[in-house]
Amino acid sequence: MAVAYDGAIQDLIDAFARLPGIGPKGAQRIAFYILGADESQAQELADAVMTAKAKVRFCEICGNVCEVSPCPICQDPRRDRSIICVVEEPKDVMSIERTREYRGLYHVLGGAINPMADVAPSDLRIPGLLERLKSDEVKEVIMALDPNIEGEATTTYLSRLLGPLDLKLTRLASGLPVGSDLEYADEITLGRALTGRSEV
Amino acid sequence: MAVAYDGAIQDLIDAFARLPGIGPKGAQRIAFYILGADESQAQELADAVMTAKAKVRFCEICGNVCEVSPCPICQDPRRDRSIICVVEEPKDVMSIERTREYRGLYHVLGGAINPMADVAPSDLRIPGLLERLKSDEVKEVIMALDPNIEGEATTTYLSRLLGPLDLKLTRLASGLPVGSDLEYADEITLGRALTGRSEV
Repeated sequence: MAVAYDGAIQDLIDAFARLPGIGPKGAQRIAFYILGADESQAQELADAVMTAKAKVRFCEICGNVCEVSPCPICQDPRRDRSIICVVEEPKDVMSIERTREYRGLYHVLGGAINPMADVAPSDLRIPGLLERLKSDEVKEVIMALDPNIEGEATTTYLSRLLGPLDLKLTRLASGLPVGSDLEYADEITLGRALTGRSEV
Repeated sequence: MAVAYDGAIQDLIDAFARLPGIGPKGAQRIAFYILGADESQAQELADAVMTAKAKVRFCEICGNVCEVSPCPICQDPRRDRSIICVVEEPKDVMSIERTREYRGLYHVLGGAINPMADVAPSDLRIPGLLERLKSDEVKEVIMALDPNIEGEATTTYLSRLLGPLDLKLTRLASGLPVGSDLEYADEITLGRALTGRSEV
């Protein structure tokens, strides 16, 4: 009794099930959606994958993803070149851009220190950061790493490394998320919110 | 301030965000996964999409998806040709096959009657079903439609249409899902479980 789909259908389901965040049921749903969709939409998806793989590279300065290196942010003359915001991943650059609160430059490390996943400081784009800091132009480095164990470890590592340099070193504020409920905040977050309290 | 990604990256995110069950954050996550993956995995995904679109067709007899028509189930001489199980979608065939409780044939309607979505009986593969029932070989039709309003409407419609024929007409049992809690069953399901109770 056949309990797998015919070759090409199962291949399609498997290809989607390998992507992050898509389970077997979701992959099946997507596969049937594609089988029922216009030929042009399927072509568009296949083209988008191959075009992105062919065109997208990492910016030689900041490590962000881009089609031309240096990336548009590094090349933008209106950005404040005295501040560098250090993030883990390219998608973090977009998250910070969306706040519209930041006009400086970025530096993408490509991850965070994580001994469990075999990510050592030498696997991160730290030498490139040190190179950029040699110019007197940079006055502040904002460490915007994820507020989890790996991010904290990386922040601590960078603080020690950059501490001796003549720079203002800052990090993102910890506290209560806007729109949240004090009752549901965990103790550590609430503790940080207390420590970091500001005058009104 | 640019708050969208460079062309090819955004195109890739958009292509995935158009698929069912993938939101903007999920699409972004998948896009960055693909950008970081091997060229070969990206190629595999693009190929799987185009190959499936090119190869997959609908079985001329039962309407299931397949690469050769008639499909392997319709062609299998070991299947019981006296029973036809009517389902809404090709994926329902796979769900029933996985139970390993059914050895008959299938008929995929391609949907269920749904006036809100403009699906009339004439949009379903009902003529093909009637054609198959003309042979004296078929003794039973199992209506295995979804237990929701559209499925019920379609079951009722088919019951009236097939009632006059010399056939056993059956439908899937309604009742409590195995492993569930009586306390959390809705009234209609519990009512059906009572009505359909069996002797032990």
